[in-house]
Amino acid sequence: MELSRVNQLSYEDFVSTFGNVVEKCPIVAAAVWARRPFGSVDALEDAISDFIDALPESGREGILRCHPDLAGRDLRVGTLTQESLKEQANVGLDALTSEEATSMARLNEDYKAHFGFPFVICARMNDKPNIFRQMRARMANERAAERERGIEEVKKICRLRLRDLVHADARVTL
Amino acid sequence: MELSRVNQLSYEDFVSTFGNVVEKCPIVAAAVWARRPFGSVDALEDAISDFIDALPESGREGILRCHPDLAGRDLRVGTLTQESLKEQANVGLDALTSEEATSMARLNEDYKAHFGFPFVICARMNDKPNIFRQMRARMANERAAERERGIEEVKKICRLRLRDLVHADARVTL
Repeated sequence: MELSRVNQLSYEDFVSTFGNVVEKCPIVAAAVWARRPFGSVDALEDAISDFIDALPESGREGILRCHPDLAGRDLRVGTLTQESLKEQANVGLDALTSEEATSMARLNEDYKAHFGFPFVICARMNDKPNIFRQMRARMANERAAERERGIEEVKKICRLRLRDLVHADARVTL
Repeated sequence: MELSRVNQLSYEDFVSTFGNVVEKCPIVAAAVWARRPFGSVDALEDAISDFIDALPESGREGILRCHPDLAGRDLRVGTLTQESLKEQANVGLDALTSEEATSMARLNEDYKAHFGFPFVICARMNDKPNIFRQMRARMANERAAERERGIEEVKKICRLRLRDLVHADARVTL
C-alpha cells in the first residue's frame, strides 16, 4: 500500500491493516491513526514508538506479554499470528531438532519465571544460534533493563512489519 | 472460575481468559496481571480501570476504536467477538427491521465522522429504544466529554464480562 493511501484510510481500515504491527495490540494502530497524515513511513513508525513510550511501565510489560514464546505452544498448535509464524519459520524455529526444542522450551520457561514476561527478539534480524545466545545472555539483565530491551525488539519487529505493508509513493507515481 | 484460581494463573492463561474483557485489547489484561493477587473481583475491576485511566488520551481513543459498530459490518459478516455478538444479540441488534437497520447505519456513520471513534454503549444495561435515543443525544456532546463517556461504557461492559468469568470463592468452599 502506498503512503498516500494509508493517509486516507478510515480508522477501521487502518486498524485492520496495521493492527498487528505490534503483536496482538491493535490499540497501538487505533491510537496513532489520529496523528495522520504521515509524511513518511518513518513518521508512522515514530508515532507508534512515541505511543509505546508514553504508556505506563505496566503497559509496556503488557505489550511484551501479548507476544508468543519462540518455538512455543502457539507454533505447535497453529495459533500463531500470520506475521509471527512467518518470522519464526524464516529463522528455522519451526524445524528445531529435538535437542534444540528441549533447550528452547527450558530457556523460555526460565526466562518467563524470572521476568514475568516472555523473551522477545526480532527474529528477522538474528539467526538461530544468535537467538539461543541472546536468550542465555539476557537472563543476566536487571528486570527494568530487560523490559526496555524487549520493547526495543518490539519496535524492530514493528519497523519490519510496517515496511512489509507500506511503500513510499514515488515508486508508483514516477 | 474462582478468584483464588484466577490469582494463580500464569500471565498466558490470564490473558487467554481475560484478554477480551476490554474489546480486542489484551494488553489491558496483560498489564494488570502483575497486580495479582486480587482480593476481590472488584479489585481486579479497579486495576483495569486504573490502567485505562493511566493511558494517554490517544490510548483511550484507541480503545474505543477497537470496538465494533452496533449492528454493523462485523455482525453482518460474522467477525464479531463472541462477547460482542452475545451482547448485541441480547438486545435485539441482530434482528433489526429494515428501517431500524438503515437508521442505525446512518447514526453510526454520522457519529464516527463527527468524533473519529465509534459509538460505544453497554448494550446489556440498555434496551433497543434507549440505544437509539443515546446515539442521537450523545452526538451533541463535546469530543473530549464523549471520549470519556465512551470509556465509562467500556468499563461497564468490562464489569459485566468480568462477572461472567469470575466468581468469589465462597460459593464453592462452603
